[in-house]
Amino acid sequence: MPRVAVVLSGCGVYDGAEIHESVSLLLHLSQRGAEYSCFAPDKEQAHVVAHLAGAPAEGEARNVLVESARIARGNIAPLDKLKAADFDALFAPGGFGAAKNLSSFAFDGAECSVDPQFEAVLKDFQQAGKPIGVCCITPAVVAKALPGTTVTIGDDADAAQAIGAMGSKHENRPVTEACVDEAAGVVTAPAYMYGDAPIHEVHEGIGQMVEQTLARIGATV
Amino acid sequence: MPRVAVVLSGCGVYDGAEIHESVSLLLHLSQRGAEYSCFAPDKEQAHVVAHLAGAPAEGEARNVLVESARIARGNIAPLDKLKAADFDALFAPGGFGAAKNLSSFAFDGAECSVDPQFEAVLKDFQQAGKPIGVCCITPAVVAKALPGTTVTIGDDADAAQAIGAMGSKHENRPVTEACVDEAAGVVTAPAYMYGDAPIHEVHEGIGQMVEQTLARIGATV
Repeated sequence: MPRVAVVLSGCGVYDGAEIHESVSLLLHLSQRGAEYSCFAPDKEQAHVVAHLAGAPAEGEARNVLVESARIARGNIAPLDKLKAADFDALFAPGGFGAAKNLSSFAFDGAECSVDPQFEAVLKDFQQAGKPIGVCCITPAVVAKALPGTTVTIGDDADAAQAIGAMGSKHENRPVTEACVDEAAGVVTAPAYMYGDAPIHEVHEGIGQMVEQTLARIGATV
Repeated sequence: MPRVAVVLSGCGVYDGAEIHESVSLLLHLSQRGAEYSCFAPDKEQAHVVAHLAGAPAEGEARNVLVESARIARGNIAPLDKLKAADFDALFAPGGFGAAKNLSSFAFDGAECSVDPQFEAVLKDFQQAGKPIGVCCITPAVVAKALPGTTVTIGDDADAAQAIGAMGSKHENRPVTEACVDEAAGVVTAPAYMYGDAPIHEVHEGIGQMVEQTLARIGATV
C-alpha cells in the first residue's frame, strides 16, 4: 500500500485549496489503495475571500492549517513535519491557495516566491526520487521551485509564458489529461484551470494525474 | 437532463456541510448528466468550529450561505429562492451543518426544530411528488420534518431511537448502501455516520443514494 502526502493550502477556490479538486484527489487515492496524510502550512492566509461575492473580506484573518483541516476532517499536520523519507509520493491540488499561500504567484507572476516550507518539501521529494503530482495552478509553483520541469496548466497562454519565464516549460493538455515529466518525476493536470469544466471531467483528469504519479513509485527519477 | 437542487449547510464537517460528501454528491450528479443548482440558508452559523482542534472558536461568526459558496465555487443562491416547481429532485449532504444550521438536532435531539426554510422546501418537494435524497445525519432532519418516513443513518442506536421518537422509522444500512422509502419518495444513505469509513466507501454509498433518487424522477410518490 503506497503511503502518500497531500499538501493543502486552505479551504475554498478563491483563497485556499480548491475543494472539488482536493476531494477528487483523496477519492482517487483511496480507490487505488493509497494511504494519505494531509499537511498544510501553519500560517495566516494571504487574505480571506467571501466566496459568494468573490471579493476579499476586509479585516478577516484565517489560518491555512486550521482551514485546510475542514477538508481533511481534522486529520492534518503542519507542513514542517512533512519529510519525503516517510512517504512514497507527494500530491497537491490547486486553487488560489497554491498561488497565494504556497507561493505569491497570484500576486507576482514569474517574479513570485515559493513558501519556504513547500519549496523544501518539493526539493526533498525530487531529490529522494519520489514522484510529485499536482494540478490546476500548482504546476506553476512547481515550475518556479523546480526549474527545468515540463508541466501543464491547460492552455492558458499568459500562465504558460510565465512558466517559461521561470525556467520551466509548458505543454497544453485538455482537462481530462495529465502531463508527465519523466526526468523530473513530476505529473501535472489542468483541473479547474478550465474554470467551466464539469466536475466529472476535472475528476477524470485528476485520476490521470494520480494514476501516472502512483505508476512512478519506485521508478528511477 | 434532470435538474436537481442541492442544499448545503456551511463548509466543514463540524459546523457545516461535510465536504467529502458534498463533492461526492456533485460528482455523482455530474457523471449521470444531472444539472445541479446549489442553495443554502442566508443566516449565521450556529457556531464556528476550528477543525484542527475540533473545538468551537469563541467570538467568531460565519454565514451559512457565504461559507457554502466555497463548496459551490460561488455558484449558489439563498435557500428561500428554492422552489420544487423548478427542479426534478432535491438532495442534501450531511455534516453537523445539517444538525446545527438546517435544524437543532445536534443540540436538542428528538425535540429539535427544523430551519423553517428547509422544512418548507422538504414539504414542497414531497407534495410535488419529487424525490428527496439525503445522507449522513440529514435523514434525521427529514425524519422530523416529514414524520412517518423510513430512513437510515447507518447503525447508530441512539440516533435511531431519536428518529423513532420523532415519528419516523430507522433501518440499519452499511456505508455502501441506501435505504428507499417508496411511499415517501425519500432515499437515504449513512455516509460519514460511519466516521472511520474510507472516502471511497462513502462515495459508493452516496452513489447508491443518487442512483435510487434519480431513478424515482417521474415516479408517482
